[in-house]
This record gives sequence, C-alpha cells and structure tokens, in this order.
Amino acid sequence: MPEFNAPLRDMRFVLHEVFQAPSLWARLPALSETIDGDIADAILEEAAKVTGGLLAPLNRSGDEEGARFDNGSVTTPAGFRAAYATYIEGGWVGLAGNPAYGGLGMPKMLAVQFEEMLYAAGSSFALYSALTSGACLAIDAHASEELKQTYLPRLYSGEWAGTMCLTEAHAGSDLGLLRSRAEPQADGSYAISGSKIFITGGEQDLTENIVHLVLARLPDAPAGSRGISLFLVPKFLVNADGSLGARNPVTCGSIEHKMGIKASATCVMNFDGATGWLVGEPNRGLAAMFTMMNYERLSIGIQGIGCAEASYQSAVAYARERLQGRAPAGAVQPQKSADPLIVHPDVRRMLLTIKALTEGGRAFSTWVGQQLDLAKFAVDDAEREHAEALVALLTPVAKAFFTDTGLESCVLGQQVFGGHGYIREWGQEQLVRDVRIAQIYEGTNGIQALDLLGRKVLGNQRASLRLFAAEIRAFVDSPAGTAQPYASELLAAVERLESVSLWLEQQAAANPAEVGAAAVDYLQLFGYVAYAYMWARMASVASLRRADDESFYAGKLATAQFYFRKLLPRIHSLEASIRAGSAPLYGLDDEQF
Amino acid sequence: MPEFNAPLRDMRFVLHEVFQAPSLWARLPALSETIDGDIADAILEEAAKVTGGLLAPLNRSGDEEGARFDNGSVTTPAGFRAAYATYIEGGWVGLAGNPAYGGLGMPKMLAVQFEEMLYAAGSSFALYSALTSGACLAIDAHASEELKQTYLPRLYSGEWAGTMCLTEAHAGSDLGLLRSRAEPQADGSYAISGSKIFITGGEQDLTENIVHLVLARLPDAPAGSRGISLFLVPKFLVNADGSLGARNPVTCGSIEHKMGIKASATCVMNFDGATGWLVGEPNRGLAAMFTMMNYERLSIGIQGIGCAEASYQSAVAYARERLQGRAPAGAVQPQKSADPLIVHPDVRRMLLTIKALTEGGRAFSTWVGQQLDLAKFAVDDAEREHAEALVALLTPVAKAFFTDTGLESCVLGQQVFGGHGYIREWGQEQLVRDVRIAQIYEGTNGIQALDLLGRKVLGNQRASLRLFAAEIRAFVDSPAGTAQPYASELLAAVERLESVSLWLEQQAAANPAEVGAAAVDYLQLFGYVAYAYMWARMASVASLRRADDESFYAGKLATAQFYFRKLLPRIHSLEASIRAGSAPLYGLDDEQF
Repeated sequence: MPEFNAPLRDMRFVLHEVFQAPSLWARLPALSETIDGDIADAILEEAAKVTGGLLAPLNRSGDEEGARFDNGSVTTPAGFRAAYATYIEGGWVGLAGNPAYGGLGMPKMLAVQFEEMLYAAGSSFALYSALTSGACLAIDAHASEELKQTYLPRLYSGEWAGTMCLTEAHAGSDLGLLRSRAEPQADGSYAISGSKIFITGGEQDLTENIVHLVLARLPDAPAGSRGISLFLVPKFLVNADGSLGARNPVTCGSIEHKMGIKASATCVMNFDGATGWLVGEPNRGLAAMFTMMNYERLSIGIQGIGCAEASYQSAVAYARERLQGRAPAGAVQPQKSADPLIVHPDVRRMLLTIKALTEGGRAFSTWVGQQLDLAKFAVDDAEREHAEALVALLTPVAKAFFTDTGLESCVLGQQVFGGHGYIREWGQEQLVRDVRIAQIYEGTNGIQALDLLGRKVLGNQRASLRLFAAEIRAFVDSPAGTAQPYASELLAAVERLESVSLWLEQQAAANPAEVGAAAVDYLQLFGYVAYAYMWARMASVASLRRADDESFYAGKLATAQFYFRKLLPRIHSLEASIRAGSAPLYGLDDEQF
Repeated sequence: MPEFNAPLRDMRFVLHEVFQAPSLWARLPALSETIDGDIADAILEEAAKVTGGLLAPLNRSGDEEGARFDNGSVTTPAGFRAAYATYIEGGWVGLAGNPAYGGLGMPKMLAVQFEEMLYAAGSSFALYSALTSGACLAIDAHASEELKQTYLPRLYSGEWAGTMCLTEAHAGSDLGLLRSRAEPQADGSYAISGSKIFITGGEQDLTENIVHLVLARLPDAPAGSRGISLFLVPKFLVNADGSLGARNPVTCGSIEHKMGIKASATCVMNFDGATGWLVGEPNRGLAAMFTMMNYERLSIGIQGIGCAEASYQSAVAYARERLQGRAPAGAVQPQKSADPLIVHPDVRRMLLTIKALTEGGRAFSTWVGQQLDLAKFAVDDAEREHAEALVALLTPVAKAFFTDTGLESCVLGQQVFGGHGYIREWGQEQLVRDVRIAQIYEGTNGIQALDLLGRKVLGNQRASLRLFAAEIRAFVDSPAGTAQPYASELLAAVERLESVSLWLEQQAAANPAEVGAAAVDYLQLFGYVAYAYMWARMASVASLRRADDESFYAGKLATAQFYFRKLLPRIHSLEASIRAGSAPLYGLDDEQF
C-alpha cells in the first residue's frame, strides 16, 4: 500500500523562504497574535501526522469498499467514522474559520498547505470536510447573525457538515436553468422543493447533522441567473437550545456510481418542502454562492496538486527500487541484474515533469493563499483591493491548471509503474481516477477558462492582468529577481501573455466566439507563465541560500532548469493555437460532426 | 447505454479514395482473386453489424461484472460466451490469416479497419481474439509444418485462442531478465517451468483450448536477451487425430484487479513442467516473438483509435442533445430554454480535436496496413523491402501515438459530458479506463519511442526516415499534392522533423542519454508530422471530389483545416523540448527526487 509523507521541507521552503509568511503575519493585526513561524511549523507537522498516519491508510480500502446507499442512508467505508471523529478533534475543519464563531482564524497560506496534504492522503475523505469549510465561508459572509450563531460553531468543529446544492439534472454549467422553488412561510422561513444532483456528502454517517446551502427560486423571481436565491436547509432542524429537532424533509434518493472518489457519496437530494432560511439578499444567491465557490475552486485545484504529490512519491520510490534495463552509458549497478528505473532518461523526464508541476503548483497555491489573506486582513484599502483583484484573476487558473496538470502528473506517475500502474493494489490508477473529477466539478475547466479570459482579463480591459505582469516585472528588477538566471525567459513569457491578451481583446471585439475559442489554450498559457514566475522566485531563494542546504537547494535549482527548458516551451504551441482564432472551429456545420 | 455505429463512410473514404486499395489489390497476385472493392465493402458492413449489434451491447455490462476467477478457472461476464460463439462463426479471427491453414487471406488494410470497430465496440472482448491473430502470425512464420497443421486451423477458426507469455514479475520492459526454463525431453518436446504475469486471456471460458506462446530459456542458453527461446504450450495436449488429450500443467494462479478492461482476464500463469514445442530457432525467441509483437503493437495502437471513435460518437450525440447556455453571438434555438452544447466554441474544440486525431489515425493505420500488405504480397523485391522499412519505422509511432492521442481523445470525450462523464452509466469514463492500458502494454510508449528514435531512425542513419520524407515530398509534388492547400505547412513540418533528427544523431554520438531524453517528444513530433501527411492526402481527395458529396467532403476539409491550424502547431513545443537536450534530466542526483 502506498505511503504518504507530507512534503514538509518543501512546504516550509515555500511558506517561510519564498513568501516569507511570518513577516507578513507579523504586520497584519488580525494575524499577529494568532500565528507565527513556529506555530505554523507545528501545525503543519501535526497535519502531516494526521494525514499520513490516520487518513492515508484508508484511501485504498475506501476506494475498494466505496460509499454505500440503502433506503435513504449512506454508509461510508470501514474506518471513516472513527477517523473522522479523531480528525475533527484536531480542529482541522475550522482551521481558517472565523474565531468569533469557533474557527481557529489561521491564514489561508497555511490552510492551502494543509488542504494539499488532505487531498494527497485521500480525495474522498478530504471532500467530506472541504465542502464544510466552503459552506462556512458563505454563511459567515452572507447569513444573518442568528444563523451564524446557530450553525457556524458546529460546522467549524466538524460535528456538522456542509454541502453546496447547485446542480439539477437539466442545469449544470448553466445554473440559470434551475427550477428548485422556495415558498415564503409565515415565520420568515421558506419551504424548499426540488431535486438536486451531484451533491457531495449530501448524505453520510459521519456527522449528526448536515447543513445544505441550496440555490432555489422565490415565487416572484425573474427568470435566469438573476432570479436565484441561496437558502440554508439543515437535515435536522435545530431547537433554540441548540439541540437537534425534527427531521427536515430533505432526503437522499440515490448515490452515483463513479469513475473515482468512490468513498465520497455523490448524492441525489430531494427537497420536499424542506424548511430553509434565506442567506443573503433575495435573487442574489449566485453572488453569495460564489463566495463559497471561489473558495471551493481553489480547494479543488489543490486536489490536483495533492493527488500529483501522492503519485510522485510512489513513482519515485518505485523508480528507485524496480530494476529494469541499464543506464544509457552503461551499468550503474553492475553487481545487480539490472539498474533501477531512475537511471533511464525518460523515467527521469516523467518524474521531473511531475515534480516541476507539483512544486510550481504548491508555490502558486500558497501565493493565492497569501493574496486571500491580504484581501481579508490587510489594513490598507488599496492593498486589499489589489489582492482581491489578483485573487479573482488567479482563482480560475488555480482551479483548472492545477487539475489539468494534476491529471497529467498522475498519468505519468502511473506510467512509471509500467503494467503495475494499471493494477489496483498499487494505488497509482486510483489517483488517476480520483483526480479526474477535479477537472469537471466546481465548474468545468472550460468554464474556468471562460471566467479567466472573458471576465477576469477582458472584462476589465486587462487591468488585473497588468497587476499580475507588474508584479513579475517588479520581481525581475528586484535584488531577488537578479539573483536567479531566468529573468529573460520570464520576461519574454509575460510579454507574450500580454501580447496575446491584447490581440484577443481586439479579436473579441469583432467576434464574441473568439473568447470561447481561445479560452482553454489561454488559461494554459497563463498557467505556464505563472509557474515560470513561481520557479524564478524559488530559484532566486535557492541561489541565495544554496550553501545552507546544498542537496535541497541544488535540487530546486535543477528542477527550475527543467521547468524553463522542458515545460515552459509549451507556450509556443499554445500561442500558435490561440492565434489561429475561432474560424477553424466553425468550418463544420453541426451535422457534419 | 452508448451505441456504436461503425464509421463506414469514413472507412470507405480512406480505403477506396485516399489509398485506392482496390487497384492495389488488383495488381497483387496473392490478393487479386481474394478481394476487390465490393467484397471489402461487404465485409466492413457485416463487421459493422457484428460489432455494433452483437458486441457493443456487452461492453458496459462486461465492465460492471468483470472477469471472475475461482480456483484456476476464469468466467467471462454474462453474454460473452454466446457472443463469442456467434462472433467466430463469421470467421473474423482468421480474417487476415494464411489460407493454407484456414485463414481468409484478407489484406491487412481491411483488417485494421475491422480491428478498429472491434476495439470501439469493447476493448475487453476484442482482446480475446486480438492475441489469437498475433499468435497465428508467429506460428505461421516460425513454427514447424506439424505445429502449423495442428494449431493454425483451430486458431483461425476461433475454436482455440492464443496468448503471448512474456512478462515475469521481475522482467517487464527488460525481457533479458526472464527466468522461465525449458528442459529438452526425449521426444523432442520441452518441459516448460516458470511463472508469467499479465497474460491476457491466459485462462477463459470461451474456447476449448488455449495455445500459449511462451518465452523461456534452454539449459545452455546465454544470459540476457540472446538466450531466450519461444515455445508453443497448449492448455490441452492435442492427439494425433486432432482431438484434445491430457491437460497440460499450465494453470492460472489468479487474475489481476485493474483500472479497466475488466472483462478481459489478465492472468498469472504457472507452468509446472508443461509440455511445449520449440517455435523457430533456439535462442532466437525474441526475434520470433517480435513477429507477433509488431502485429500486436499495431493492433494495440488501433485500440486507441477505436476507443476514441466510441467516445467521439457519444460526445457528439450528447453535445447535440444537452441544452446548456447560449451561443456566443446570441441564442441559436431561442424557442428552447438553452442552446445545445455544440454551439459553444470550446465544446467544438474538444469534438474537433477528437475527430481530427481519430480520422488522422484511421488513415495512418490503413497506410501501415497497406505497407504490411506490400511487405507480404508485393512481387517486386525492392517494393517489399521499401514497405518493410516503412512498417518498421511506423509501427512504434502507430502503437504509441494512437494510444497517447487515444487517451487525450477519451478524456476530452468525457469532458464534453461534464459531471455525467464521471458517472459509470454514461460509458465515457469506461473508455478512459479501458484505453489507458494501451499506453502501457505491448511495450510502454516510452519503449516504443526508444525503438523509433534509437533503432528505426538513428539505427540506420536515418535511411528509413528518408524514405518517409521522400514519400511526402513526392506527394506534395504530385497532382494530388497540388490539389490541397497545405503543401507549405506539410513540407515545413517534415523538414523540421529531418532537421531535428540530424541534430539528434549528432547529439547521440557524443552522449547516449540524448536518445532516451528526446525519444518521447520525438515520437510525438513524428506522429504530428505523419498525421499532417494523412490530412493533406485526405484534403486532396476531398478537394477534388467535393461536388460529389458536399457535406462529407466539406466536413473533411474543415477538419483538415482544424488539424493544421490548431493541432500541428504542437510540434513547436516538442521541438523546443527536444533541443533542450538531456542535461535538464540529469541536474538532480537520484536522491534529490
């Protein structure tokens, strides 16, 4: 069974050395009393124990057993209940939650690293609490004080879990089509009716209550996406004293049989006049839900990194142990029957591709976490607004690029194993199946790409993009930037991104189809440029500190070199495909497909 | 449940129009009496009925049920036995077999199209006979007359099945490590002992006998790959009258639990002094096995195309029916709640990518089939040798590029379905799981790439590559070549391939690691150039005949445009990665991974 050991050295490198989180925390009043470098390290070490020791051993068995459905009830695989009970004792669900309601108030920069460990240990288990954290965010931002008091403490503690109920059978990417209804009741509550599908953790046996955040339409609501409101619908109503009351008529009709994340219950949820409460303003439900969705999008992106890291660890171990063939220039271990796989250049190519993408993603996710922290905690308005703009720009990139490269990485990690990679007991094929969903849910990666190019880049005439480019240029001109060897490659890449963006702005003005035609390639191009920035920052630190820990920093510099020489060139093809425009997509009539 | 309808129109286009197979058949004496255009069409139409009507309906249920193992026996899923019995009645197993022993003697150009249908209808079922066809080839080419008389007729008829037993637990890509032994017996037979893994169809309940082709070592054999011999080992010995005799001590120890192809039994086979007969020369077993392996490699490549075609058909149907969102320039079906998915540029990008890769692969596989037919049937020595050189060059490309693009295609076909793509009942996720093995077995795609670059291109100082390039240049200069608009792109691409090949020859002379470092990127580059040639040939025919069938040919031309504008540019990044050399792979010590 594969082991998982959290990459603590690399996480500390990113947190302390690349982004110098402790000095940021020290200058933010909301965080300065809560956390410092030592506390962060202690939390990550504890997280490594929980994820590696408690959760990772359940991942294979959870996949084999799967979640089971029987007459409205869901049973999680053996060991999940006990592990969940232990897990929530650590306070992990409320790690970054609002301290006013029982959260620990930790920065997102730290939480993203914890989330990576959680997904690496097992995507299915991770999802049972990932949705809770997102639901808490939406409740904290938009619900009434009474709802917050009633629900947040039990959600942060993990005693109760949260879900997000958006999709209906006929309304997936197009939420404007949804039909669930909310009838106002005399007591100020609403009666919610409708059927939702693909509800992660909609029913389970881990928590005593489940709090659904549900999109539905008020009776007088306008059609389309401007007529959608958000409601909080608990599985059990909550009495005034906080005890559980009547069972609300919201029931699980079935669970899906899926490619992967089999231990995560993906539910059909039927609301039959279930009692709910409005969260946020009427008809502004999508906006409120997006508070949660943006958080979930980063989280789901991190699923891609976590799965890739798990695949990488197993692949490296296998490549060191498995003896097949000889090194190109002759035997490296002549006393043995063959050399280990890791001597073969193509095996190294596969491992380095995963390593460069995963470590690039780890840095990027921490950077987005930093911007989320600044957007939330910075005292200065301008600093907050700047961070908010970057968060909006970078979130779709994180979600889609982490998960696209996550699938690529897991496929490569499986390939290193040869035939054994296809066999279930080795665990590599499960990671491919588990990570695949992350490109689909929380908005398909195609939707993320449209969000990035259409709204976040062109929607403000590239203003946010200019912030991103300005930060990279400032880095290149800084002492840190001149301490690394990739300044010209990085500048050329960002100039290329800006040039393509301007060209697309001109094209889109003439033909709105150009945005959708280019979007996925554009997001990929953006991702490779962003990772180039991350790798240049990491290379800078590694260059400056090399003497302190030669093995680690030299490895980091070598991985940076691999990234710039072997992966960044992917932008050439992406740019060519973008500049080919939308015409090649419309040469066929629909019936000619 | 997804349907499969064989793409007969496109197959006829490739066979009759692009490659003008009937005129080739008419000039080859061995084929002129066997087949013509009408017979080919009739065979393909019958094949479409068998694969679409009989086999495709078993694919989902076969995946759910899987092959089952109990105490040495394997039970195939419900329906497989009856379907297999009907299937072999059609003579499909011996379609391209030697008529002297009961084969139908059909050309490979036709057989590859049948194989594509077979894999599209279901990879697991297809494998039960695909291995038989390959085993027949090896027996026909290398076994004694007595063995041929005894085994070939029953194998061609499908009454018996064949396997290939190469891999051992410690010997996968590195067959030189294998340990199975063969002791000569007084009667001229051999006693075979050893354990083999990953044996497709090693045990099953479809045929009354199973004929294993087994690699093992003679007592005096040299170490490594030059000490391996090939043996024929039947499950049941065969009496002189052709009836089945004693059970041979070759038994199935277990079957693997896999990511996909779950209805195909992947067996551990134990040989305990089983009686076998030498096939070919002592210690020349790998060479004999490669007769089979090369055939299987093309076949397994075609698995990639078949799965992609199946995924494409479902994705197109879904994209036409599923209503989500509105077209970029405004509603196309304003009377409905939303437009169909197919109006969205990114959905079209996904569908066109699959279409361009699948149709390019279909043409390429038929071209390789044509060269196999010429290598086998051409009267002129020079023509045979020319074809043999092309077959050797193109086989690793077919195996690896068809399957790499097959996975990409199936992932895209799944993505078109959004969340439903991840649900088992829709069938798209099964295709991803099933096609994934094709990149691994029959020599991983990394091994194929080493074979291409190291042996087939550099091993003869680019002589075979020059044949390939010369054919493309001759096409461009021909009337057909000037009838299509991509001459300059195609010439530029082939020049780039030649230039990179020369550069690699120079690099490899100084550092043998350069071959392995570049190999996978190089094979991809080769594949895109080869598909550009295929698309130019298809575009030429479509341009000349456009008036005859406007819808079909205009669609073909539009897909060619998509290929040249959106997919061929991938060669830019591949070339950049190749020219970065092997140094970025060796910046890390093994322990720094």
